[in-house]
Amino acid sequence: MNGAESLVRTLVAGGVEVCFTNPGTSEMHIVAALDRHPELRSVLALFEGVVSGAADGYARMAGKPACTLLHLGPGLANSLANLHNASRARVPILNIVGEHATFHLPLDTPLSSDIRGIAQPYSLWVRSSRSTPEVGRDAAEGIAFSQTPPGRIATLIVPADIAWSEGGKVSEVPSVVGPSLPATGTIENVARKLKAIQPAALLLAGGTLHGEGLKHAGRIAAATGAKLFAPYPFTRLERGAGTPPVERIPYPLDQAREALKGIRLLVVVGSIPPHAYFASQSGNSACAPSECELQILAKPEEDSVGTLENLALALGANTVPPIAEKPQRIAIPAGPLSPNGIAATIAALLPENAIVVDESMTQGRGILAVARGASPHDFLANTGGSIGAAMPMAVGAAVACPDQRVLCLSADGSGMYTLQALWTMAREGLKVTTVIFSNRAYGVLKREFLNLGVGEPGPIASQLFSIGSPDLDWVSLAKGMGVPAGRVASLEEFATALKRGLQSQGPCLIELPL
Amino acid sequence: MNGAESLVRTLVAGGVEVCFTNPGTSEMHIVAALDRHPELRSVLALFEGVVSGAADGYARMAGKPACTLLHLGPGLANSLANLHNASRARVPILNIVGEHATFHLPLDTPLSSDIRGIAQPYSLWVRSSRSTPEVGRDAAEGIAFSQTPPGRIATLIVPADIAWSEGGKVSEVPSVVGPSLPATGTIENVARKLKAIQPAALLLAGGTLHGEGLKHAGRIAAATGAKLFAPYPFTRLERGAGTPPVERIPYPLDQAREALKGIRLLVVVGSIPPHAYFASQSGNSACAPSECELQILAKPEEDSVGTLENLALALGANTVPPIAEKPQRIAIPAGPLSPNGIAATIAALLPENAIVVDESMTQGRGILAVARGASPHDFLANTGGSIGAAMPMAVGAAVACPDQRVLCLSADGSGMYTLQALWTMAREGLKVTTVIFSNRAYGVLKREFLNLGVGEPGPIASQLFSIGSPDLDWVSLAKGMGVPAGRVASLEEFATALKRGLQSQGPCLIELPL
Repeated sequence: MNGAESLVRTLVAGGVEVCFTNPGTSEMHIVAALDRHPELRSVLALFEGVVSGAADGYARMAGKPACTLLHLGPGLANSLANLHNASRARVPILNIVGEHATFHLPLDTPLSSDIRGIAQPYSLWVRSSRSTPEVGRDAAEGIAFSQTPPGRIATLIVPADIAWSEGGKVSEVPSVVGPSLPATGTIENVARKLKAIQPAALLLAGGTLHGEGLKHAGRIAAATGAKLFAPYPFTRLERGAGTPPVERIPYPLDQAREALKGIRLLVVVGSIPPHAYFASQSGNSACAPSECELQILAKPEEDSVGTLENLALALGANTVPPIAEKPQRIAIPAGPLSPNGIAATIAALLPENAIVVDESMTQGRGILAVARGASPHDFLANTGGSIGAAMPMAVGAAVACPDQRVLCLSADGSGMYTLQALWTMAREGLKVTTVIFSNRAYGVLKREFLNLGVGEPGPIASQLFSIGSPDLDWVSLAKGMGVPAGRVASLEEFATALKRGLQSQGPCLIELPL
Repeated sequence: MNGAESLVRTLVAGGVEVCFTNPGTSEMHIVAALDRHPELRSVLALFEGVVSGAADGYARMAGKPACTLLHLGPGLANSLANLHNASRARVPILNIVGEHATFHLPLDTPLSSDIRGIAQPYSLWVRSSRSTPEVGRDAAEGIAFSQTPPGRIATLIVPADIAWSEGGKVSEVPSVVGPSLPATGTIENVARKLKAIQPAALLLAGGTLHGEGLKHAGRIAAATGAKLFAPYPFTRLERGAGTPPVERIPYPLDQAREALKGIRLLVVVGSIPPHAYFASQSGNSACAPSECELQILAKPEEDSVGTLENLALALGANTVPPIAEKPQRIAIPAGPLSPNGIAATIAALLPENAIVVDESMTQGRGILAVARGASPHDFLANTGGSIGAAMPMAVGAAVACPDQRVLCLSADGSGMYTLQALWTMAREGLKVTTVIFSNRAYGVLKREFLNLGVGEPGPIASQLFSIGSPDLDWVSLAKGMGVPAGRVASLEEFATALKRGLQSQGPCLIELPL
């Protein structure tokens, strides 16, 4: 068995089910091994930013490590921006990166590069396999490391000669030490404070925004009256009718402060205290008001779900029914396209258990509020602020959950970063409906410019914020990649197109000119 | 004057004329400064891989430093793959990368990242400005460093508060120490060898593949009978009727060896000895036959043009007319689309002083041979092997040389990496004709797989090499970004479309289904 074969068999034995990839010559022996192992599904993307974003979306929904196979330093480099987002989502990803044969490296041929250096900014574990018998063990340890709580990025570099040589050994994934609870005193202290200080709120992250974790939070909220918040950049939020309602802290700092206004105790679970993305010239960027006491209950690497379970117990709330969002029948609106009308249409038509992947930026911020009482659904956000995450994540989420509908909401500027994802949706026949909010602008930037206080943008700045002239035509772009698409001019047309899209057997795209 | 203003004024004073960019919030003060300085042309791209590839193409043709403005770590990360190619092209590039305000960094907000770590693999100079009065000096030193022979990548990180604070100072670019000549003994030694050893050849790179450098090489060839070669990955090759003919060493190792067969002395000028891109399992990947003596005349960082001038002098060849390619009237062929027919059509229709940017991969390798006697033109190749270089480089070349026609030849797989370049061509009205060789496959990979000796690719590998199912429709993709496009079915149709494209006042695209 060669090294490549031992690598792939170790991945399979370790429970890895999907390999998102764009391989090259140095990975050819690994491709030959993938060819022999259909039980590890290979998903091709035409650009590595799609590969890494899909891995992120997959890991968020599958709750297990995603695997990528990338070509040398440049292939890894192309994946970095969405690895940035994935690192902020704290999901487990193992990147396999091919490298030149060890004896070829000193020749400094054109594709030679510092792969380790490229990996390091976003991988907390980087290893280069040093011999064929070690490849299996390295992959197994990489899988294990990626599952280090709360979820991390690991990168394994495999030189071609080490992959093609004989002597490979399949290795078992070492057991992963689960997350630990914070000290009992911390939990009891928070329980006391939650009883004493009003109004209070929990800031939830990681596993506490869905499933059992969210139920515990809902029980605590029911027992104490504490509000539940999510940071603006959350990994996976379960919501809709019957689910404990969680409010997202808004992106603009003034709105974030308004949302937290009056809160006297903010208990942070699995996250860090919330701040604005960018500094303002006035200095303070904390979202919580200065009179609010911040209490870190669980760090991201701690067992935040178990922590909430124990907190509920300490509060005597472990059998209290969690607070639950009321189902809301939302009428399909009519009239011209508007952010609120679009949000209502989506909320009205959202199918049960849909996965909404959102990067609709300035135009789509109303959707969460409107869809709170819609059919239960998962919501995935851009966690790292590097745009171009939504369409790739939609690919990964759809691969992870073939029985669920994926609704991908993307701004036009964000979508252009990784539009190649549309092709993979078509290739794999994924049930993803992509809605493009086409305002032909980097809307965030125009607003930030106005905040500078230097007046309206002049002709040069205006051109740098406009992605019109020429206008992007998303219907053609989608068609070019085999995805049926249409442009709508009214809310009625949008509702018709969305209904059809959400019933189709493959991907489709709807462009909303705003 | 704030730091951003001093930065932009320093760039202008230092002779920087174009800034390729995709800015974000942290660069807003720099955008405001660009807004006040139309003499520094701002060119927007919708993805940073286009930004860096355009900088590469610009620097190759303008022969002066290109400048990029990028948003934080992820923006820089997206630019890396084409910076990889640019680093191999040895061109001068200064990246300006915005960073969070210094007081914001400890908060570890979503877009925080290790920008220095991301820059280092491809930047030999990385600096983060530490105070507002130093930004101008830092930029000036970055410009100077980028011009360190033969041309390097420098990255300047500018924290937002340092850009927005008052106290900026415009700085003068320090003088750059030019490249030095190799020891006189080395040149005389090579002159002796060139007289004594036959057949001999020069392997040219950098400045010796165009202009005066190439003329010196042509004189040496005329005087000694030495053949002239370029490595497969060359930066800029001047060719066509009247130009000293240079043969490119082919990509496949067996063809490379065939090209150099019988050569007993290979004099390497401004380059390193040529090897195959990838190792073969049999080990030896040197392009030159073992009986060929390799003589390094000038290293990449040395003055290779001056070296050839002195070598011509040492050979008494400094007044000899350079060898020159004979003009060749190439007939426009007819019939079905074929690689040779396409090459002949291009060669026949190539306008005077065209810039050909080539990444046509497996399908376009015949073009150089057929176009050798065509109208004089420049030829830019992918130097680093990271695909997705051609369309961005075409943008940069067209910005650098508005009076020259740019013909961009791209494979479909390569083109998909950075297809957003088409939008910038349309936005800027660039006279770029893009020809897509649409074979719907990663053709190189299929061949490499067959070389493994494990038989034909099975269903999984076949899908990983195919970029069909669904087929890409480049006419729609181009239309989606505002570039007029057509698909042709015969050489006659191709000739008609190419003629029209080469006369249009803006970009166009021609898809060749193969």
